[in-house]
Amino acid sequence: MSNIQADELRPVAGNGLLDRRLFLKSGLVFGTAALLAPVVSRVAAGAKENQGTNTINPASPPWMHEPGTPFSIYGVPSPYEDTVVRFPTANRDVPGNGVSWTPLHKLEGMITPSGLHFERHHNGVPRIDPAQHKLLVHGLVQNPSFFTMENLLRYPLTSRICFVECGGNSNAGWNKSPAKAEAGYFHGLASCSEWTGVPLATVLQETGVNKKAKWLIAEGADAFAMNISIPIEKAMEDAMLALYQNGERLRPENGYPLRLILPGWEGILSVKWLRRLKLVDRPIMARNETSKYTELQPSGKARMFTFVMEAKSLITSPSANMLLKQPGLYQITGLAWSGRGKIAKVEVTADGGKTWAEAALQEPVLDKCFTRFRVHWQWDGKPAVLKSRATDDTGYVQPERNKLVAERGRHGFFHYNAIVTWQVDENGLVTHIYDDQDETTEDTGDISIDAGWD
Amino acid sequence: MSNIQADELRPVAGNGLLDRRLFLKSGLVFGTAALLAPVVSRVAAGAKENQGTNTINPASPPWMHEPGTPFSIYGVPSPYEDTVVRFPTANRDVPGNGVSWTPLHKLEGMITPSGLHFERHHNGVPRIDPAQHKLLVHGLVQNPSFFTMENLLRYPLTSRICFVECGGNSNAGWNKSPAKAEAGYFHGLASCSEWTGVPLATVLQETGVNKKAKWLIAEGADAFAMNISIPIEKAMEDAMLALYQNGERLRPENGYPLRLILPGWEGILSVKWLRRLKLVDRPIMARNETSKYTELQPSGKARMFTFVMEAKSLITSPSANMLLKQPGLYQITGLAWSGRGKIAKVEVTADGGKTWAEAALQEPVLDKCFTRFRVHWQWDGKPAVLKSRATDDTGYVQPERNKLVAERGRHGFFHYNAIVTWQVDENGLVTHIYDDQDETTEDTGDISIDAGWD
Repeated sequence: MSNIQADELRPVAGNGLLDRRLFLKSGLVFGTAALLAPVVSRVAAGAKENQGTNTINPASPPWMHEPGTPFSIYGVPSPYEDTVVRFPTANRDVPGNGVSWTPLHKLEGMITPSGLHFERHHNGVPRIDPAQHKLLVHGLVQNPSFFTMENLLRYPLTSRICFVECGGNSNAGWNKSPAKAEAGYFHGLASCSEWTGVPLATVLQETGVNKKAKWLIAEGADAFAMNISIPIEKAMEDAMLALYQNGERLRPENGYPLRLILPGWEGILSVKWLRRLKLVDRPIMARNETSKYTELQPSGKARMFTFVMEAKSLITSPSANMLLKQPGLYQITGLAWSGRGKIAKVEVTADGGKTWAEAALQEPVLDKCFTRFRVHWQWDGKPAVLKSRATDDTGYVQPERNKLVAERGRHGFFHYNAIVTWQVDENGLVTHIYDDQDETTEDTGDISIDAGWD
Repeated sequence: MSNIQADELRPVAGNGLLDRRLFLKSGLVFGTAALLAPVVSRVAAGAKENQGTNTINPASPPWMHEPGTPFSIYGVPSPYEDTVVRFPTANRDVPGNGVSWTPLHKLEGMITPSGLHFERHHNGVPRIDPAQHKLLVHGLVQNPSFFTMENLLRYPLTSRICFVECGGNSNAGWNKSPAKAEAGYFHGLASCSEWTGVPLATVLQETGVNKKAKWLIAEGADAFAMNISIPIEKAMEDAMLALYQNGERLRPENGYPLRLILPGWEGILSVKWLRRLKLVDRPIMARNETSKYTELQPSGKARMFTFVMEAKSLITSPSANMLLKQPGLYQITGLAWSGRGKIAKVEVTADGGKTWAEAALQEPVLDKCFTRFRVHWQWDGKPAVLKSRATDDTGYVQPERNKLVAERGRHGFFHYNAIVTWQVDENGLVTHIYDDQDETTEDTGDISIDAGWD
C-alpha cells in the first residue's frame, strides 16, 4: 500500500482528468491531499468525545430505540429507494406493447438487479405455468422432440454474465435534437445479468440436425407469438436456453420459464417464453426482420440481419439532469460493452475531445458483458464537455455521432452506438448535447423514446 | 466445435463420474450418445407437422390467447416460484433475533439474488432514513469526521463480487446426527453479491490515522447497537464501505444505507447499518468476540479472533431431500469458496471417497467469491455416496468431518467447513449422512438450525 505523491495527482488530460493508475492504489487515492475535505463535516476541535466504546454516541437516531422489523422470506428495496425504477413507455392503445427502461444512471457495478432489467414486449407478459410449458424442436432435425422444463434441467447447465441490448436502444440519438431524458431512460434498453441454462448446441445435438438446416425459427409463447430467424452458426456457437437469471429462475418479464440468450446480438433474437425452434433452410422473413430491423442506407442498399450490437459506452455519472454542487474531485464512471467480445479500452475526455485519458476498467472484464469504467476528475467549476469512447478487443472503436449519421443516413433507427456527449455548465448542471452537429443531419421525425410502439 | 467420441464418455472416477473437459466442449457433450433420450418426448413418427412456420403449432396454450400483463416499474419473481424463499429461524421471544437462510439448493450460478441474501439480525431490521444517516470516524484519528451518504458517494467507488458467510454457518454439522434440512437451510448463511462502495482505506486516509491505532470498533445503527473489533490491517487491505448490492443500493436487511464489507471474513464483521468507526489501540472485547465467536479447544486453549472463513464446498444438486427419478446422466453441481483467495480445485467423489474426479470450475473464478463447479455423472441406479472437496490457491484443502471434529472438539460451534456427504439410495432419494463417524464425536446438545438465537 503506497501513499500517493502530490505530483501523481497532476492531470493526464485536459480539464482535470487524473491518471487511471490512481484507481489501482489500494484505495489510497488521496494521499495527504484530502481533496474532499471541504464536503466532510469535521468534529469541532475540543468537542467532548465519549470515551466509552460500547455506548451509543452521538445521540442515537430513533431507529435504534425500538426493535426493527423481523425476517422476511423474500426481500425488497428500501422505501427510500422508490425512485429507482424502470420507466415504461408503451403504446397507448395496446398497453402491453412498448418498453421499460433500466435506470442505468442510478445503478452501480455491472449486474442489473433483475427487478430493473429492461423490458420489451409486443403484447404483455404471459403468465406461464412452467409445468405446462414445453419447447418443441422440429423441422430439419432427425428426432423432433418436446422438452419440458424438467427435461431441460437434467442437462448440464452453464452460466455466463452478459448483456442483453435491444436493437432499438438509444434511438433518440438519431433525432435532430439532443434527448432530454436521464441516461438510463435514453440508453437503458440494455441490462446485464448472470444467465444459467443449457447450451442450445447440446439440445440440437440431442435432436440431431440435418445438413440442410441453416436457420432456426424461434417462437415465443406470448400473445404476439413473437418469432424471428437465427443463423445456425450462432445457435451452435454460444446460444443458451436460459432458465436462471442472477441465481434464481427467470423473471416473468424476461421470459419465464425459458428464454433464448444470444450473447452480444440484438435483444429481439433472445426470444422470451421460448416454445418452439424450427430448423429450416432459409430465414422466415418475419415482421421483425423485414418491416423492422431492416434499414435503407444512403447508398440505396438496405441493412438487414444486422445481428451484432457494436461496441458502445456512456458515462452514467455525471450524466443528464444531474447537478454537481461544487467544484472538486469527482469520479466519472460509466458502462461499456461490445457484442463482439471484451472491452479493451475506454477513453474519457473532459474538454470535448481535444484530449483523452484512459479510464480504469473494473475487473472482471468479461466477453460480451457490461464493463464498468472509472476515472478521477478534478472539476474546476468551469463548463466542461464529457464523453467516453469504447474500443473492443477486435479493435473496433465507438464512432462519433456525425460519422455514424453520415454512414447510416436519415433512415437510421436501430443500432445507435455513437459517443454520448454530456455538457457540464458553470452551475454544475449536466445536459445532453451534440457537439459535432453537421448540416447533413435532418429531422428524423417522431423517433424518440416517446414514439408509438408497434 | 468437435463432437465427442464414445470413449470420451468413459468414467474418470468410480461410480460414473465423467471427464470435466467434456464441460468445455462447446456444449456438444453428448455426441451421438443421446444419453438423455429416454426422458425426452419424441414427436411420434408420421405425425403431421404444420409446415407453416408463422402459425401457432402445436395447440397454443391459454396464455397466448389474451394479452399479457403490462409493464412494471420493479419486477418480482413468478408466482410459480413462491417456494424459492429464505427460511427464517428466529428467537421465539425476540422475533428480530435469528437468521434466515438462502435456499442455495434452488439457485444456480454464483450471484445470490438480493431478495434471497441470508439475514442475521440481533434486533430486527431498522428502517433508516438515508438523509439522516451519518458515519462517524473518530478515536485515534487526526480529523474526527462525520460522513453523510452524499459525502461518501462523492468518493471514487469500486466494485467486487464476493461472498459473505456467517461464522456460524453450517453449525448443524457439529451435531451428533446428520441434519435433515435441505442444503440451503443447512449451509445457506452464505451468499454472494456484487458490492460497490468506497474503499475504507480511502476514508481513513481522509481522516488521518494515528500510529497508535491498531483496531477499529465498528458499530451498527440497529436497536442492538451491534459492535465488534476489526484489525486495522484488514481495514486498510480490502475493506469496503458498501453502498450498492447487485447494482442497486443495499437492501434494508443487508445494511441500508451503509455496510462494512470485509471480504472473506466472518459475516459478523461486515457490520450492517454502519454508523461509527472508532480507531483504538486494542480490541473492545465485545460480546460477539468473547462470549460468542470464542471456542474452547481440546487442548484447553481457546480460539479467538478467528476471522477468516476457510475453504468450503458443497454439492447443491443433487442434495438432501431431492429425488433422482431414474438412472442416467446428471450434472452434479455446487458451490465452493474460500476466505483466503481463489478456489484452485474442486474434486467430487461418487463412491464415498475411494476415487475422485476434478470438477469443471465455471468462469470467472474470483478472489473470495462463490465459484460454481460442475461435473457430469452417469448414475447407474445403485446407491452412491457423493462429496465435494475444495482446495484454495493457498493449498488449503477442505477437511473431512472426523478430522475437523477431532481438532476442534465438542465445543465447536463456529467455522464448520467439513466435507458434506450426500447419500443417494436405490430409489434415488438423497439424504445427508456422516460416512466417517468416529466414536469420539459426542452429542453437542442443542446446536442445530432450530437452536435458540441470542
